[in-house]
Amino acid sequence: MLDPALQYARANRQLHLSGLCDWLRIPSISTQPEHAPDVRHAAEFAAEYLREMGMNKVEIRETDGHPVVYAEWTNLQTATVSLPTLLIYGHFDVQPTDPDEEWTRSPFEPIIEGENLFARGASDDKGQAFAVLAAMESYFKTSARLPVNVKVLLEGEEEVTSPNLFPYIRSHADELAADAILIADQDMLDPQHPIIMWGVRGNLYTEIEVRSPAHDLHSGTFGGSVDNPFNVLVRLLAQLQDGATRRILIPNFYDRVEELNDEERTLISQAPINDEVGLYLTGAPALGGEAGYPLAERVSVRPTLEIHGIAGGFTGEGSKTVIPAKATAKVSMRLVPKQDPDEIFESLKSFLESICPKTVNLDVRAIGKAHAVKTDYKSPEVQAAAAAYEKGFGHKPIYLRGGGSLPIVDEMIKVMSRPDRDIPVVMIGFGLPDDRTHAPNEKFYIPNFHHGTETVIHFLDLFSKIS
Amino acid sequence: MLDPALQYARANRQLHLSGLCDWLRIPSISTQPEHAPDVRHAAEFAAEYLREMGMNKVEIRETDGHPVVYAEWTNLQTATVSLPTLLIYGHFDVQPTDPDEEWTRSPFEPIIEGENLFARGASDDKGQAFAVLAAMESYFKTSARLPVNVKVLLEGEEEVTSPNLFPYIRSHADELAADAILIADQDMLDPQHPIIMWGVRGNLYTEIEVRSPAHDLHSGTFGGSVDNPFNVLVRLLAQLQDGATRRILIPNFYDRVEELNDEERTLISQAPINDEVGLYLTGAPALGGEAGYPLAERVSVRPTLEIHGIAGGFTGEGSKTVIPAKATAKVSMRLVPKQDPDEIFESLKSFLESICPKTVNLDVRAIGKAHAVKTDYKSPEVQAAAAAYEKGFGHKPIYLRGGGSLPIVDEMIKVMSRPDRDIPVVMIGFGLPDDRTHAPNEKFYIPNFHHGTETVIHFLDLFSKIS
Repeated sequence: MLDPALQYARANRQLHLSGLCDWLRIPSISTQPEHAPDVRHAAEFAAEYLREMGMNKVEIRETDGHPVVYAEWTNLQTATVSLPTLLIYGHFDVQPTDPDEEWTRSPFEPIIEGENLFARGASDDKGQAFAVLAAMESYFKTSARLPVNVKVLLEGEEEVTSPNLFPYIRSHADELAADAILIADQDMLDPQHPIIMWGVRGNLYTEIEVRSPAHDLHSGTFGGSVDNPFNVLVRLLAQLQDGATRRILIPNFYDRVEELNDEERTLISQAPINDEVGLYLTGAPALGGEAGYPLAERVSVRPTLEIHGIAGGFTGEGSKTVIPAKATAKVSMRLVPKQDPDEIFESLKSFLESICPKTVNLDVRAIGKAHAVKTDYKSPEVQAAAAAYEKGFGHKPIYLRGGGSLPIVDEMIKVMSRPDRDIPVVMIGFGLPDDRTHAPNEKFYIPNFHHGTETVIHFLDLFSKIS
Repeated sequence: MLDPALQYARANRQLHLSGLCDWLRIPSISTQPEHAPDVRHAAEFAAEYLREMGMNKVEIRETDGHPVVYAEWTNLQTATVSLPTLLIYGHFDVQPTDPDEEWTRSPFEPIIEGENLFARGASDDKGQAFAVLAAMESYFKTSARLPVNVKVLLEGEEEVTSPNLFPYIRSHADELAADAILIADQDMLDPQHPIIMWGVRGNLYTEIEVRSPAHDLHSGTFGGSVDNPFNVLVRLLAQLQDGATRRILIPNFYDRVEELNDEERTLISQAPINDEVGLYLTGAPALGGEAGYPLAERVSVRPTLEIHGIAGGFTGEGSKTVIPAKATAKVSMRLVPKQDPDEIFESLKSFLESICPKTVNLDVRAIGKAHAVKTDYKSPEVQAAAAAYEKGFGHKPIYLRGGGSLPIVDEMIKVMSRPDRDIPVVMIGFGLPDDRTHAPNEKFYIPNFHHGTETVIHFLDLFSKIS
């Protein structure tokens, strides 16, 4: 089955690219209500493609927001052989196009320039998801079947934090049951360095609000009468992190944080992430972060605390002498495996309440929570992906833990793991760091599209051989 | 001279009110360029009124911005008697009217409802300035002269921080020479409590900016690599003020701060400013400010430090995981007599530079500076005003130091004081705390307008008797 599928994929690169371009023409911007029909159109396009290639069951499933595409192929002919089941996740919605004036191409008229395909969604995630679909199509066209049972779950709300996919997954847990999850929605380091992502950090996103006067006061008339919410807030925030070591000072914050073992540390140290690269990419005068850990660990397996902004008061040109009625900070913490966002939120809240003066009112709110994800990079499923990468791209992958958070993956693991084993999550991807996802002039490197298709063809083959 | 002037003022209240209304109809909003002709129109209106009453010399003086009105009356008939000279300062520009939808009257169609006159500028400052002009007119109409030499300086840029009046005063120092300055541009506590303002605080307004990455970074990918400018900034700001005592921790900040003497302390303690009033006016859950000083001192004669807002990063709805490229705080300090804003700025800057980590770039900028003003409340000029208040309103004044800042008064004192004596500044006013100056539905309490006029008639009389 493998070789004909590979040959088909190679012979039909133009066809697959053309199919992707048709999908990219649909402006499926999930955050803009006027594009809701387009998001549905993109769902229908994917459903039609899955139906035509030969999936047994293809349905558009309604949610309270944009619809989900669900498709299955189950081996019905060879009932004596029990094939493993793979759940494939991807998304067909895209980010808005603003600032539009910075696009030098039209975001929804895909155009090929040299080896790149330019369009909104070309890399994130239609291009990567279509590589997976093209791999499946290559098997169907040449063998009329897939090497394994496959379930496909494509959503239209990934760019708006998947509000309806969480309940969908919980209410469809039985239907979604699988032996592993495959996600192709990430970057490679460069075309010679595909990445196996064997985990991501969790997140706790909070708002910390301090209020004192009932309304803004003039700092001349009232300066000295009340505690300014900003003055109090900066003192509270300053007590969350040590200025010298950048250790987070929330009580019990590190209790569940595990150090890497030697093998993990070696694996991470092999990634080409060093201070020189960090300085180049950030443009900072010097690198910062937690003392005692190398950059590659600080950005991936160590927890962090970041203040994103502080609302309230006066920030315009010139001077306005206001004592603001309130000050509200957005503060998030990246968490690592075993840290529990609920537990840390309670600890943060209690700590702030204990140090906050009675001259102000304090509110601490959690507005986003996700556990970290860690998958066993030595599992046969992840090793199958590593071998597939090597065949598809001609290069061994590097093994990284991601610094960002994937709440929906955390949810899938919670819902779909068996008591005896966490479901393996195979996180691969064919994007490049300069693809400008979420930004003007997004593009996809076309050789990665084709090598990605072949990688998935290999992965499905290797996955079928796991005993 | 006194009694006929008083009788005239009482007999012509309607005339004076009507003159004020004519002035108020001119929308002299100084900050809005489209109203520049109106600001000039308001200047011409005042000049015409001054000319008609009998001032010797009345001129519209051009500046780089809105014009200034300058007028003089010098006793030419009785050359043998040397009369003292009073410089009267006021302003004819007004604040914008936004939010317009909150006005239940038209801001430039003055309307009398009960004992109040509603219009933008009714209290700040046209109504109060016109009370002074009406007092002068009452003398001219009844005695064809004033009791003292008078110089009038009215500006059209007070609401935009008087950018052109500073150079004007410096370049016209000789012409402006006087024995005292009278300013009527403040509130009374209530109609039974006129206020002698015997000083105001100074100000140092700064921007403190921390920059690290060259552009915003994603906190997932880069969290842990650099020091977040907000995290650093809150630590810097937290070190400017003690959390328990609210003492300001800038080195040498208090070096020149003088404690009140017993007499001053008693004077200030007599003002009806107590914690109950403070809680009522601010709506705060508890009062704050510097430990060890009563509220009346904290808001007037003690220095403060306030953070007004912090620009940068993400403050919208929901969550965005950004490490902002920069964070910029607006921080101001109210200063007390003898504190030098330049010296304190240098101390603040050095202190912040000494505690700022090298992982970020720091900029500390001064965007506004004013010395505190303190005038001798026992001087005959100020005592003349106190006696005039008692005659005009039937109530003895209370003596307060103002918490706000009057940079232009600081400048006048610097330019016009003699080596042997600071020029006395007589700060009085006829507004009320609920006049809604700078806000929708500004009004002026009409009895205060008439009592204010009589107060100034008495003041001119008493001022002429100072030997």
